[in-house]
Amino acid sequence: MKLKRNERIGAIVKILSEHPNKTFTLSHFTEKFNTAKSTLSEDIMLVKGVFEKLNLGKVITIPGASGGVRYIPFLSKADSMEFLEGISKKIEDKERMLPGGFLYLIDVIYDPDIVATIGKIFASIIDYSKVDYLVTIETKGIPMALMTAKAMNIPLLIIRKNSKISEGSSLGITYVSGTSGAVQSMSLPRRNIKEGSKVILIDDFMRGGGTIKGMHDLMKEFRAEVVATGVLISTVKPKEKMIDNYISLLEIEEGNGENIVRPSMSFLEKISENL
Amino acid sequence: MKLKRNERIGAIVKILSEHPNKTFTLSHFTEKFNTAKSTLSEDIMLVKGVFEKLNLGKVITIPGASGGVRYIPFLSKADSMEFLEGISKKIEDKERMLPGGFLYLIDVIYDPDIVATIGKIFASIIDYSKVDYLVTIETKGIPMALMTAKAMNIPLLIIRKNSKISEGSSLGITYVSGTSGAVQSMSLPRRNIKEGSKVILIDDFMRGGGTIKGMHDLMKEFRAEVVATGVLISTVKPKEKMIDNYISLLEIEEGNGENIVRPSMSFLEKISENL
Repeated sequence: MKLKRNERIGAIVKILSEHPNKTFTLSHFTEKFNTAKSTLSEDIMLVKGVFEKLNLGKVITIPGASGGVRYIPFLSKADSMEFLEGISKKIEDKERMLPGGFLYLIDVIYDPDIVATIGKIFASIIDYSKVDYLVTIETKGIPMALMTAKAMNIPLLIIRKNSKISEGSSLGITYVSGTSGAVQSMSLPRRNIKEGSKVILIDDFMRGGGTIKGMHDLMKEFRAEVVATGVLISTVKPKEKMIDNYISLLEIEEGNGENIVRPSMSFLEKISENL
Repeated sequence: MKLKRNERIGAIVKILSEHPNKTFTLSHFTEKFNTAKSTLSEDIMLVKGVFEKLNLGKVITIPGASGGVRYIPFLSKADSMEFLEGISKKIEDKERMLPGGFLYLIDVIYDPDIVATIGKIFASIIDYSKVDYLVTIETKGIPMALMTAKAMNIPLLIIRKNSKISEGSSLGITYVSGTSGAVQSMSLPRRNIKEGSKVILIDDFMRGGGTIKGMHDLMKEFRAEVVATGVLISTVKPKEKMIDNYISLLEIEEGNGENIVRPSMSFLEKISENL
């Protein structure tokens, strides 16, 4: 099939957009389009240009025999701020407040479009170049973790709160929930993680940090190194969390019958570094 | 900013691909590109053409004041078959067999690329034009359900196996697991579903159908209508399931120390109807 330049560009953009961080060889496209390598290289330069011009992410070309072209999702500081400020307003809504200081967030954190953008933001501020797995814990963080894994093109692992017979032998730990003080357990199937792996942890909400601390401890059992920890929302209080190094996109200041939500300092620092 | 046609096409494809089933008004693009409506209409005809030519899905234009352009994901019968046969071979691997007749599938059903394709296949064979929610049950079906919801542009809901205090008041039922015969419970927060909603159910695995039957019963409590049920894998035995109407992409015939996995009849029928 012989295609016009316009058509080739459309097809290249479609394929790259749907497979972030996957390297496609030039011959993948020259064969598909029945076109010369020189023509295709020009096409790719054009694609690169329009992604840059319109802030649609980055397209990089990797030279050499094992080289090719790859799309790297990136959300600019301005676009990220606009998105996070929109979400903050949504979350501040008093109707969301539930007994016990909980927040109803299901419609936000299960929304496919919202979690896709959250995934892009994490991929814009966390260095995942040497990471083997993206790890989350069931249940509410799974959608945003999956979209982050998709943007980074890294396998997802889900820690279970009860070990399941259907996943084979597993490694588990007990931990103390920062919120309730209750002792809980979490586990991952043994064959999930190879020893010496590097991992990123993602979760939706952090108050005391007990759950994230438990995830760190479980990773130690697997001799895996945690290179970054990201949460969507952390609470301003308690100021001292059970872990130190984490990136939170939003922070929530809980008041008497009123919450203030805003992009967090750790996010602002990170996104400024990456400009 | 003034763009060339090539560049406009690249940008349109990027934006449409990342937002399946979302309608963008023509003025969204004319403003972004600072271009005339007639020029943009030609761009969109070109995009439409290349999606058709290369089997990349469908692009439709909706006329009128509330009209615009929309990308509808669609995987052809040939592409779906190639994908499902590849997955079948992977799943047949004897190394996956665990004690008790269980299968280790984590690396398949948590893989962001694989679940994205599963989502596209469900969106190609299920009519979701009037559907309000896509509903799944924790935990292993969540990644494929989210990607299906993303492809259909429908909100996702996740049934919990234990009702959680942090989601407000909930509606729950008990059900009998087809696999273990044990009585279990499932629930959804009350404010998740409006009365009279239409829903699609998605899960990863079905043996007796007890869990899916439970999901149907829970939907009845919400006075919601189940318009379709999709699972990735169903077992050939028992032949009689606890529910009748479902689409399974794959079926597994369990043998003594050996499994046979193949695209299922219900899938083949559906995909042929939709050509």
